[in-house]
Amino acid sequence: MASEIRVIPVGGFPEIEAGVDIGAMIADTGAVQTGDVVVIAQKIVSKAEGRMVPATTREDARAAARREAKRVVRETENHLIVETHHGFVCANAGVDMSNVPDGTVALLPKDSDRSAERIRATLEERIGAPIAVIVSDTFGRAWRIGHSNVAIGSSGIRALRTYEGQSDPAGHELVVTQIAQIDELAAAAELVMDKLDRIPVAVVRGYMFTGDGTAQELVRPPEMDLFR
Amino acid sequence: MASEIRVIPVGGFPEIEAGVDIGAMIADTGAVQTGDVVVIAQKIVSKAEGRMVPATTREDARAAARREAKRVVRETENHLIVETHHGFVCANAGVDMSNVPDGTVALLPKDSDRSAERIRATLEERIGAPIAVIVSDTFGRAWRIGHSNVAIGSSGIRALRTYEGQSDPAGHELVVTQIAQIDELAAAAELVMDKLDRIPVAVVRGYMFTGDGTAQELVRPPEMDLFR
Repeated sequence: MASEIRVIPVGGFPEIEAGVDIGAMIADTGAVQTGDVVVIAQKIVSKAEGRMVPATTREDARAAARREAKRVVRETENHLIVETHHGFVCANAGVDMSNVPDGTVALLPKDSDRSAERIRATLEERIGAPIAVIVSDTFGRAWRIGHSNVAIGSSGIRALRTYEGQSDPAGHELVVTQIAQIDELAAAAELVMDKLDRIPVAVVRGYMFTGDGTAQELVRPPEMDLFR
Repeated sequence: MASEIRVIPVGGFPEIEAGVDIGAMIADTGAVQTGDVVVIAQKIVSKAEGRMVPATTREDARAAARREAKRVVRETENHLIVETHHGFVCANAGVDMSNVPDGTVALLPKDSDRSAERIRATLEERIGAPIAVIVSDTFGRAWRIGHSNVAIGSSGIRALRTYEGQSDPAGHELVVTQIAQIDELAAAAELVMDKLDRIPVAVVRGYMFTGDGTAQELVRPPEMDLFR
């Protein structure tokens, strides 16, 4: 029987400079407990990792996005959808001009699973294991309007929750077998992460999790991808 | 400043028969308060609305899916991705063989926004306004492995939360302007909705919402859709 979960905003951080230890900074808030899932907006991770590059115009930003792309998936005058070097398909390779210092744009973390792993190591050392860490970003979706928060990095939790081989109460094998739980946790966290109020972190408390995994595991390999 | 939200599982329902008043049944649990967002798995709505059709084999299910489709988006031996008559792009038109009586499959509600509206009317009459209602289903995604819960029907809440025209603390206009909040609420709810334990409903408490809207608003019109 599933039990109630809480989604708790964690704010009050200063402007993040390159070199900041995000894990230590979050531990210092006192907001995290053993057993929590900590969801962190990509932007502060990118800033702490110094992933800012100069760009003043939309054209500069698009050029930066091209450099971050492994493959252009769709391009129109107003849209550039690419596959990033991580394998994520998103607009502008996740390059973002908002909430950044003037004249710069923020790139995605170079290895966002590794970022999550490092932050988790610090949190578990300071607070105690297990703690799961998800680095999130808001992506657009094919066919549906609006953005939704998804996991681009993850550590200390299985990426997928699986019903495989399990049966429903009537004895039918469940057809929907794999839930992208780290994406759903990222989405839940976004509900309390107000971009305008500098709340770049949320804690999900009471969610039972086991195992380990990466956001990379959610990248659909080309041979399984009907929408390349 | 965003505040904490709670996501509360609501279970203990009997097997749902055609004709059941889902709104009254949920009100009877006593689990819902004014100001809640109530997320309901599509399956029980479909059952209550008598949206079951005979099907015993995978081929029968695929035939039912074709009848529910406005357009086939992709088809392979193992996958049938269609646009439903609502405009949703999903596998097998949402037709589902799990958690249903033997020899039948469940179709999506005919008008899932209308379903949400009716349930909301009952809940608000019984408990008090405002209450938002979301009917959800787990959909696969392009490019990403695993399913995620999304809104296929909604009433009493804006579908999108918009940052349009607002600026970040540094004065830059925010580029990510529209969050599909009803999808994120559906995803948050799924984290406590265990298919195996008959928890088809979850309450999200403490989430501030205003306005009205439908899940239909999230359907990307063909001229804006780069992935048809």
